[in-house]
Amino acid sequence: MLNPQRTIDDLKQLRALTGDENGAQRVAFTDTWLKARAFEREKLSELPVTVEVDEAGNQWATLKGKSDREVLIGGHIDSVPNGGWLDGCLNLLAGLEVLRRIAAEGTPPVTVRLVDWADEEGARFGRSLFGSSACSGTMNPNDLRHLKDKDGVSLIDALARVDIDFEKIKDSHRQIRNAKAYLELHIEQGPVLLNMDLPLGVVIGTFGVERWSCKVTGQAAHSGSTPMNVRKDALLPVSHLDIGQYEIAKRHGGVSTIGSVITKPGIVTSVVGEATFTLDQRHMEAGKLAAMFAEAQELVATASANANVTAEWNKIWDIAPIPFDATLQDFAEEAVLEVAGVSHRLPSGPLHDAPEMQRAGVPTVMLFVQSLLGISHNKIEDTKEEHIAMSVQALDKLASRTMAWVAAQ
Amino acid sequence: MLNPQRTIDDLKQLRALTGDENGAQRVAFTDTWLKARAFEREKLSELPVTVEVDEAGNQWATLKGKSDREVLIGGHIDSVPNGGWLDGCLNLLAGLEVLRRIAAEGTPPVTVRLVDWADEEGARFGRSLFGSSACSGTMNPNDLRHLKDKDGVSLIDALARVDIDFEKIKDSHRQIRNAKAYLELHIEQGPVLLNMDLPLGVVIGTFGVERWSCKVTGQAAHSGSTPMNVRKDALLPVSHLDIGQYEIAKRHGGVSTIGSVITKPGIVTSVVGEATFTLDQRHMEAGKLAAMFAEAQELVATASANANVTAEWNKIWDIAPIPFDATLQDFAEEAVLEVAGVSHRLPSGPLHDAPEMQRAGVPTVMLFVQSLLGISHNKIEDTKEEHIAMSVQALDKLASRTMAWVAAQ
Repeated sequence: MLNPQRTIDDLKQLRALTGDENGAQRVAFTDTWLKARAFEREKLSELPVTVEVDEAGNQWATLKGKSDREVLIGGHIDSVPNGGWLDGCLNLLAGLEVLRRIAAEGTPPVTVRLVDWADEEGARFGRSLFGSSACSGTMNPNDLRHLKDKDGVSLIDALARVDIDFEKIKDSHRQIRNAKAYLELHIEQGPVLLNMDLPLGVVIGTFGVERWSCKVTGQAAHSGSTPMNVRKDALLPVSHLDIGQYEIAKRHGGVSTIGSVITKPGIVTSVVGEATFTLDQRHMEAGKLAAMFAEAQELVATASANANVTAEWNKIWDIAPIPFDATLQDFAEEAVLEVAGVSHRLPSGPLHDAPEMQRAGVPTVMLFVQSLLGISHNKIEDTKEEHIAMSVQALDKLASRTMAWVAAQ
Repeated sequence: MLNPQRTIDDLKQLRALTGDENGAQRVAFTDTWLKARAFEREKLSELPVTVEVDEAGNQWATLKGKSDREVLIGGHIDSVPNGGWLDGCLNLLAGLEVLRRIAAEGTPPVTVRLVDWADEEGARFGRSLFGSSACSGTMNPNDLRHLKDKDGVSLIDALARVDIDFEKIKDSHRQIRNAKAYLELHIEQGPVLLNMDLPLGVVIGTFGVERWSCKVTGQAAHSGSTPMNVRKDALLPVSHLDIGQYEIAKRHGGVSTIGSVITKPGIVTSVVGEATFTLDQRHMEAGKLAAMFAEAQELVATASANANVTAEWNKIWDIAPIPFDATLQDFAEEAVLEVAGVSHRLPSGPLHDAPEMQRAGVPTVMLFVQSLLGISHNKIEDTKEEHIAMSVQALDKLASRTMAWVAAQ
């Protein structure tokens, strides 16, 4: 029988074992991460599962079913430095409890596997989704070959230390040959469910992202001797976009953020001669995302012409929206309704391993559980224990529906 | 007879002697500055003047007149590093030519003195107007006692090296006991005369200044997971003021500048949690300056309330407007009209030594000559030679009028 309290107890044990006064310290490929992995294997040893670590360092626990067709439940035990007690490991330990429940009922109709992805956070080498993107096939290893951490240790050496051969990481792809569905529970890491006073939500997919840097060039000039009407103030287009992006995002139903502004010469006695800012826009629909970015560019162009300055855009990164599977979204909503009586569908802002599975063609869905304060990647990250218990129940019910669906295929 | 070409020749000699491929290098108290001072004394040695260096390092050349009452003409031979060929030394070398003209005509009715102020720029120790504020009496030496340059050399030691005893600098005040008027010519360092296509202008005084830093505190939040309507975006009040200040400055006829914005955490994936900006506002009228700052504060308060953030203002510096002497402004206008046929009265944005004399109770006025590009403190600083010649003529005519006025007192 499912026992969500066991998940809460497991989470607290893991926190005691791998955290300190500053929070969770399970950075991927470190000794603390290995300790967390050993903890996980010890828990799994009580179940009739086989455990293996694949070429990309992902740890798989397999409960053989009557069919080779697989339902995957995933998470990541790695954390950022000084991280929270739930991000990534809730997914995994909730999945463990679901696996316990299924195993206790005898051989399941389909094979069920719990995967602990390696280095979801990318905290040390700056590349998120290491294990899941190696497995999904979207990774190009040559983009990672020269990565070093801040102490100068190469990714390749850090991997070798934990018995991962960098040249073979993409062989991990064989793991999802029989995968027919992928399920992941995660804390929201945002304030939407909190503000709606809902414990659980269904994730419709991950936002598409347009991430740009823009350099505005005007003319530095003395703040005392330069009349307002002859200034070429490089800050003005930034200010117009900063305000205007709220209107743009509202109109299209996305989000838009100026996160960094750097002013040069950046002194109190000079008009800003050069302003460089970042723009991060996200939307679930590719067309609306494109419209948002086009409107932002147009706004900056108009403001730049009015201010007698020029603006130059440079792309940092972009990704298309990744919508989750429609059938699994319906299953997830049924599961949430059964547990909480009310459900809400929302997109995910942050990246996760789950979209990598969707991109690899495995029907995927995620559940979100409310985050207190809307904060993660910090030791104050928290979720009510009552909500954690409900999230384990919802994942369990989602897993049952999904197994029946895959079994019937 | 006045020979403005001699001033242009002197300026070029000084440039060759004390500049390099990066511009003027006459930073106060350095060997290059001493070399410039020696050049100045060599020129003065041809005249019937006595030369002394006072307790604050100001160099005075005195042409005794029939009366002890004095007309002062001032400038500064020090420059910023990589400075222009005119800032400060034009004032002095034009004054030298005027002194030559007066001396050639025999004993003048009043005493005429040419003063070369020490360290107007403050380029090395960050404190402008060293010599003139010691002389005027507005300086508090304890504010300067602990100043060091970027190499760790103390101001006190740098002064001692050129035979200035820091403890006696304010004794320089005795120099202005008999001063009845102070005149200074300077390049505009701004674009006003250039844009009006005028060679010369009369300076009505120096702006009052309100110089503030403001820290806006919101809440850093994930750019993907935080909906627009729950953000506490600390950049928004800065953007509203950046745009609004143009309206405020226009309405009151002053200038207003946001010169620096610092965003924290300052990363592409986070809403700005803290934004610190500088505001520099200037006006010739104290009441309008106060109104401008009050309106800026109100605008930020409203925008902060709307954005659900808080703003905290910290004063960096302020100074009241310093209007120049009305009679001398009229003399200056007459001189400019005689030389150029058209005159324009304008305030000075940058600081100068002249207001220190006005603050000390010495009736003061300045003349501005057009700056090409509106740029100074840079090797590209320039003024047409034709305009330099006209500026020497105008200073000469202003000096004659002022001498007659002081003689008649």
